[in-house]
Amino acid sequence: MSTSEYQVTGMSCGHCEVAIRGEVGQIPGVDSIDVSAQTGRLVVTSTEPVDDAAILAAVDEAGYQAVRA
Amino acid sequence: MSTSEYQVTGMSCGHCEVAIRGEVGQIPGVDSIDVSAQTGRLVVTSTEPVDDAAILAAVDEAGYQAVRA
Repeated sequence: MSTSEYQVTGMSCGHCEVAIRGEVGQIPGVDSIDVSAQTGRLVVTSTEPVDDAAILAAVDEAGYQAVRA
Repeated sequence: MSTSEYQVTGMSCGHCEVAIRGEVGQIPGVDSIDVSAQTGRLVVTSTEPVDDAAILAAVDEAGYQAVRA
């Protein structure tokens, strides 16, 4: 089990959380996603390590910017 | 052609606009919708007059509050 944390900018509401959850959730190996528009915190748990680049690209695809926290 | 204007509170982003557009757009007779998260302004144009109650209920269904402007 691997857990990675990111800081996301630009989320403003629950719809934004859903958008990020939808994109990140498509990455193979991702087991659970904890995301908060209020704090900008994104925590991804995966059964095996997932490349940061894949997570950051998924967040970008959803329309937001993230950095590894 | 009938045009009605409403003030919506609680929208924060484009996803919110899409949510309102999706609900209001289902009302029979609605021809076009102009909605802005930035101003909270919702303008509904319909081929025949639409009850305010129907518009307000659709906005509520989307998760927001509106009043006739």
